[in-house]
Amino acid sequence: MNRKLCLFIAMSLDGYIAKPNGDISFLDEMNQEGEDYGYKAYIEMVDTVLLGRKTYDKILSMGMENHYGERDVYVISRTPRKNSGNVTFYSGDIKKLVTALKSKHGKNIYCDGGAETIQQLLNADLVDEMTISIIPILLGEGIRLFNGDYPEKKLQLVRCQKFEKGLVQLHYVRN
Amino acid sequence: MNRKLCLFIAMSLDGYIAKPNGDISFLDEMNQEGEDYGYKAYIEMVDTVLLGRKTYDKILSMGMENHYGERDVYVISRTPRKNSGNVTFYSGDIKKLVTALKSKHGKNIYCDGGAETIQQLLNADLVDEMTISIIPILLGEGIRLFNGDYPEKKLQLVRCQKFEKGLVQLHYVRN
Repeated sequence: MNRKLCLFIAMSLDGYIAKPNGDISFLDEMNQEGEDYGYKAYIEMVDTVLLGRKTYDKILSMGMENHYGERDVYVISRTPRKNSGNVTFYSGDIKKLVTALKSKHGKNIYCDGGAETIQQLLNADLVDEMTISIIPILLGEGIRLFNGDYPEKKLQLVRCQKFEKGLVQLHYVRN
Repeated sequence: MNRKLCLFIAMSLDGYIAKPNGDISFLDEMNQEGEDYGYKAYIEMVDTVLLGRKTYDKILSMGMENHYGERDVYVISRTPRKNSGNVTFYSGDIKKLVTALKSKHGKNIYCDGGAETIQQLLNADLVDEMTISIIPILLGEGIRLFNGDYPEKKLQLVRCQKFEKGLVQLHYVRN
């Protein structure tokens, strides 16, 4: 079985992953003790994480240096930066990186955002699976999950799950 | 029980109700004999239809003059036009119209689009219920269902239904 590049992300019903200033506090309403919306099971299937530089810096600023544990982390950055531990900064062509990662043996590759990096992956048709949690809210403005120039792409729905707080999780794979 | 203003509409996972030229052929993939995705039951609850002038003209051009049967039809139009049968053209304030309709006794009021009319209703906070069918496709471009300047609005999910073709229907009401 090939490694897959996967998204696992939440958006408002109107398609925003954050307010214009990056605020994601609308997700707080979904907090429920003992409910992780499948995240732990999902991340167990992942050994490599890909994310944009701004998202990475945000994670650091929240004091979550160890957020991805022992996983290999690739940070897409226009400006080269010194690698550190299991974190590699990458300023080259994202398609080359993902193709190289997919050709290696391993678990899945998880893109943890942000929107810009996800657009690049969609534009290059590199996304194999998407787990999208739809939050029962209209934000009215913000950073869109889907805002790209990618070609039309049919998907296959493999799972649809409704949670108590009104979150609906949709799992799609390539058609 | 008060009359409700309701949407019943399909969008691609990336939030488009049509391609840039108005093409909605991506919906054809969902056609399945004997499956109407709840439309007939829904429209039975409706005695009044609200829609934009361009959408109305499109319906006429498809030879579907009788699409809404005996229901009262209100067409939102910048340019006044002569009323005809059960079709009323309205160039005034949409909030006044909807408030007047809601104050009357009757079944639900269904807004059948287009995007511009839906935006006006959302901006004026007039939408009470939304039934949104998510089609398993990324269109990449087109006319967005949600593209407005409306304030943040929490919703309550009352139903989530998965269909064989991968369509997921979400039913939200005001929170």
